[in-house]
Amino acid sequence: MNTKKVAIVMGSDGDLPAAQRAAKVLESFGVQSEMRIMSAYRTPITTSKFSEIAADEGFGVIIVAAGRAAHLAGVIAAYTLLPVIGLPLRASMLDELGALLSIVQMPKGVPVAAVGIDCAENAAVLAVQILALSDDELRKKLSDARKNLEEELLAKDLELNLSEFEEITEEI
Amino acid sequence: MNTKKVAIVMGSDGDLPAAQRAAKVLESFGVQSEMRIMSAYRTPITTSKFSEIAADEGFGVIIVAAGRAAHLAGVIAAYTLLPVIGLPLRASMLDELGALLSIVQMPKGVPVAAVGIDCAENAAVLAVQILALSDDELRKKLSDARKNLEEELLAKDLELNLSEFEEITEEI
Amino acid sequence: MNTKKVAIVMGSDGDLPAAQRAAKVLESFGVQSEMRIMSAYRTPITTSKFSEIAADEGFGVIIVAAGRAAHLAGVIAAYTLLPVIGLPLRASMLDELGALLSIVQMPKGVPVAAVGIDCAENAAVLAVQILALSDDELRKKLSDARKNLEEELLAKDLELNLSEFEEITEEI
Amino acid sequence: MNTKKVAIVMGSDGDLPAAQRAAKVLESFGVQSEMRIMSAYRTPITTSKFSEIAADEGFGVIIVAAGRAAHLAGVIAAYTLLPVIGLPLRASMLDELGALLSIVQMPKGVPVAAVGIDCAENAAVLAVQILALSDDELRKKLSDARKNLEEELLAKDLELNLSEFEEITEEI
Amino acid sequence: MNTKKVAIVMGSDGDLPAAQRAAKVLESFGVQSEMRIMSAYRTPITTSKFSEIAADEGFGVIIVAAGRAAHLAGVIAAYTLLPVIGLPLRASMLDELGALLSIVQMPKGVPVAAVGIDCAENAAVLAVQILALSDDELRKKLSDARKNLEEELLAKDLELNLSEFEEITEEI
Amino acid sequence: MNTKKVAIVMGSDGDLPAAQRAAKVLESFGVQSEMRIMSAYRTPITTSKFSEIAADEGFGVIIVAAGRAAHLAGVIAAYTLLPVIGLPLRASMLDELGALLSIVQMPKGVPVAAVGIDCAENAAVLAVQILALSDDELRKKLSDARKNLEEELLAKDLELNLSEFEEITEEI
Amino acid sequence: MNTKKVAIVMGSDGDLPAAQRAAKVLESFGVQSEMRIMSAYRTPITTSKFSEIAADEGFGVIIVAAGRAAHLAGVIAAYTLLPVIGLPLRASMLDELGALLSIVQMPKGVPVAAVGIDCAENAAVLAVQILALSDDELRKKLSDARKNLEEELLAKDLELNLSEFEEITEEI
Amino acid sequence: MNTKKVAIVMGSDGDLPAAQRAAKVLESFGVQSEMRIMSAYRTPITTSKFSEIAADEGFGVIIVAAGRAAHLAGVIAAYTLLPVIGLPLRASMLDELGALLSIVQMPKGVPVAAVGIDCAENAAVLAVQILALSDDELRKKLSDARKNLEEELLAKDLELNLSEFEEITEEI
Repeated sequence: MNTKKVAIVMGSDGDLPAAQRAAKVLESFGVQSEMRIMSAYRTPITTSKFSEIAADEGFGVIIVAAGRAAHLAGVIAAYTLLPVIGLPLRASMLDELGALLSIVQMPKGVPVAAVGIDCAENAAVLAVQILALSDDELRKKLSDARKNLEEELLAKDLELNLSEFEEITEEI
Repeated sequence: MNTKKVAIVMGSDGDLPAAQRAAKVLESFGVQSEMRIMSAYRTPITTSKFSEIAADEGFGVIIVAAGRAAHLAGVIAAYTLLPVIGLPLRASMLDELGALLSIVQMPKGVPVAAVGIDCAENAAVLAVQILALSDDELRKKLSDARKNLEEELLAKDLELNLSEFEEITEEI
Repeated sequence: MNTKKVAIVMGSDGDLPAAQRAAKVLESFGVQSEMRIMSAYRTPITTSKFSEIAADEGFGVIIVAAGRAAHLAGVIAAYTLLPVIGLPLRASMLDELGALLSIVQMPKGVPVAAVGIDCAENAAVLAVQILALSDDELRKKLSDARKNLEEELLAKDLELNLSEFEEITEEI
Repeated sequence: MNTKKVAIVMGSDGDLPAAQRAAKVLESFGVQSEMRIMSAYRTPITTSKFSEIAADEGFGVIIVAAGRAAHLAGVIAAYTLLPVIGLPLRASMLDELGALLSIVQMPKGVPVAAVGIDCAENAAVLAVQILALSDDELRKKLSDARKNLEEELLAKDLELNLSEFEEITEEI
Repeated sequence: MNTKKVAIVMGSDGDLPAAQRAAKVLESFGVQSEMRIMSAYRTPITTSKFSEIAADEGFGVIIVAAGRAAHLAGVIAAYTLLPVIGLPLRASMLDELGALLSIVQMPKGVPVAAVGIDCAENAAVLAVQILALSDDELRKKLSDARKNLEEELLAKDLELNLSEFEEITEEI
Repeated sequence: MNTKKVAIVMGSDGDLPAAQRAAKVLESFGVQSEMRIMSAYRTPITTSKFSEIAADEGFGVIIVAAGRAAHLAGVIAAYTLLPVIGLPLRASMLDELGALLSIVQMPKGVPVAAVGIDCAENAAVLAVQILALSDDELRKKLSDARKNLEEELLAKDLELNLSEFEEITEEI
Repeated sequence: MNTKKVAIVMGSDGDLPAAQRAAKVLESFGVQSEMRIMSAYRTPITTSKFSEIAADEGFGVIIVAAGRAAHLAGVIAAYTLLPVIGLPLRASMLDELGALLSIVQMPKGVPVAAVGIDCAENAAVLAVQILALSDDELRKKLSDARKNLEEELLAKDLELNLSEFEEITEEI
Repeated sequence: MNTKKVAIVMGSDGDLPAAQRAAKVLESFGVQSEMRIMSAYRTPITTSKFSEIAADEGFGVIIVAAGRAAHLAGVIAAYTLLPVIGLPLRASMLDELGALLSIVQMPKGVPVAAVGIDCAENAAVLAVQILALSDDELRKKLSDARKNLEEELLAKDLELNLSEFEEITEEI
């Protein structure tokens, strides 16, 4: 009912597609989200102000999508007590590794929760899992989604074994 | 008051020191925790059963400390809808990287939240941040802890600049 | 005659092409195979049940093709005593390395045998080598295949040296 | 009864400790093993001759322990049709990665099965799993060993939870 | 005469030894420096305030020593127009790489100048080179220091070749 | 007015696009630059002569763009006391890492300042920051540029939040 | 006149383009070369025989082009006393690194000389440098080639500085 | 008889132990060597002069031992036509990788031959192989050394198999 909102913060508008994949997953669970563009380097004051009041504004989790210099998640985490989820974005191998390490290797006392590289969906599901701790209806939806995942795969396995081997081979 | 418990799961008793660092941080916030030893490979049935009933047993977050074949966090995440925090442990560089990638690179729909390598304290603080979303008292404690971190460092900075440069140099 | 079957398990239907390359090699040796789609995370119960009864169902070796979160091979190995061959799939560099490490860095007592990244053919040949230990006819076929490999390369070397250098250069 | 032997080949006598860890595991399963020192570079003729006749000499599996220039497993695989298990040894990070890649990245048709870095025990268990395909008594022993692994860990988990939290903390 | 000062900022007092190595080199050139402890995460407000007024306080260059989550240099660079030199500290291989990438991979418009891992001396010399652009006396000192480096090595080369080969061998 | 010039040195004409991106940024600040092609290996004498007289020729900073064997920056730094900025170029992952390490890992006393891989803009901005230390007008321009960066991003953030969510989604 | 020949060995005909780049450079120096296809795994006997008699056949240097499982250079080096140059080929990042490490990390007493990844030209020039030690005419040609390299780059540098900056910018 | 000398160049006296291991191997083959300390950065003029006249001074091969900023081999190669062998030294993983890449990734036309990390012996043997191309006596010594290597290992293999398994196990 009065579940908290999720903020999806990105460092530039180039990160919008990943942000929107997260937003769609949240929407599918009925969780409200807001997307914001800000930068720890270019708009540092906006970033700190946003983070300081995020909890009061009704946010419960902040997802931060960020590429190579992925400090944004950490800087936001420095100004809020809300759980911050860092989403490293697809890039060159060195930038992906740099982003992942930037997100997780935080100093003691200021954690950021990393999900997989480019895995916006999991950032969203993790946010839902967190919010569902105090929202039984949301937990029910999570349970349904998990069952759907299972059934989808079971159906594919079944279909594979019903079909003739030769057919599949030809298709490919 | 009736805040949920945190489970701290480890793959072997060699991981006990890291698990206990997490437990102590949780204790300092007044959050109850339970430590468990289980393995996705050696005690798979115990692992799946534990995970399936963890929410009903009163757990709100599961922290999983794991070294090189760090699949344990993922396997637990497969059987529960609770937020799962993966804690990669200190090891050889290849094993650290392998553990970190194992923890974050989960398939869509089954996220694990990674914190820094060997950073048990942040796994605990992240768990507290998650539980604090529906526990104002816990949030107050988080806020105090954050302020302590700040004051501690301000004090060190002050001390450094009060002391004479020559003295410090000699000490080292 | 009554040689055991080989199971080729994959984590999603996107891995079907690699699985089928393995299946074709097995077929060329007259070894029967079955392809299955299952996931340690999305269909964990199916995965454990399949693995527990695989030996009784007549399987002798299980090949597991898996991309980034390549835990599937390990989870299957936890539920069976059959040799499990892990096949890391082509992906981004970090995912390839993560998959390779996930497959080999198993705890003591629960091994998985890794073959090269994307090398489905070698997963199949390794399975045949294992089955051939108690099947002389199969060993004969392996020996023939090895000789073919040799002759093919000898022919290419001969052809290269029969042709005029200038011709080849032009062709390229 | 007349189960095949396992050869444990190493590139230098410095690899003897790892080789012996594998030998002890094989001995615990009642599988006979022989240790050999040979080098693809220093004793290439011995290496090829050994590999060519290994099957006829009663070997069923060849384990090859090798450090940085880990070509030995591949060279042996080129001269035999037996399953070859490559065991990369503990070394500097670059040498470990080089050894692991050397072992798995074999050309099509000549596979080597890699196990984890320095995990001699798993090389041995994998060899036993392979031999057990045609030896029911060996399979029974594997099953017992797996159960022991499970019970050992269950006991540790129980012990941890019976003890008082404070006690453990003090011990560490 | 009225050359600008150099700030040497570190994220924790554990980085003091590296900071002092830089301070000593600056002192040897007669350049005044001040050491500060601050954190982008633990004392973010102090950090931004310090950076905003650093130029007005008479600083010409800011050296930032930082380990794994090496965001401090970038955050300071966001609040000042002074050249910022990032000094990645000695750590585990993953943390060194993470720190180096964190320092250099900054967004367009907000550069940080990286020097070698743990090479506090070069951070200081680079600062001196920058200040020497408008200070002829400082440039003269740089030139002398460079000549000393050269003469020192020439002397070692000479000594090596004057000594008898056998002697050196024995010494080692 | 009489601000020093910036040299932009590249190892081959293939690096011209990156060099020109740097030149354009410098031009936007009214800083004069000259582009040169030289190689530590192919034109070593030209390289050393250029470097020795660069300061006398009116240069204040030398930017060196270099790919894989990125020694050029170091060799130039050996012959000048001017600040040298190394710009590693986009290449294969191994070449990028090699170039980055080549640039930063200099011996004590001969620093090179590294900026991000392919980030020619930041090499230029860093050069401007260095020159601005003794040029108030240039500092003013830097301040304006920084404000533009900020306003640009604030505008994008505003635009994102004014637009309807559905619209954006459709656009993508 | 009677300069020795260079063998260019490759593991498969897919490596022919790289081999031919080396052959062309050798041809430009008037050095005779022969290309061969052989494999340490698929044609091990041909490989060892070729290597054993290479010196007697008039070869002075053996260049070995090899991709991922780059053992071929080492195996050839084991059977000959001639200098062997290993040329790692362009591949995925893990395969390039694996090939490079496979080539250089040889055991004591059996060296292979590695050149850069995919740098067939340098493999050829290195071979020429080796042969030129006892062939003054060849040394003269090397000297001319080096001068050409230098003049080519000097010309490009000159051209760049004669042209107007605006023109170049437009061209790109 | 009048075989050319080998220069062993190192960047600092800290590299003397590796240089001397190379010198001893050369001495064991009766090849004369000279050790020099010079730096591409600290004594660039000495380095270029030495390299320019090395061939005239009777050197046939130049071995360059170098740690992290391993540019020395390349700079020397730029001033001589002699074969240059680069020996990367043992260091941190990032420095080893950086040194190896610095050595091999040279531009077209100026090759450096890399041997394994810290493998001074192989740098020396490679130099001997190169000189032996025009020195039959030296080739004879190489052949003897290779046979010794073989016999040494055959003896160890024999000894291992003569001893009782139990005995060896106890010794370790």
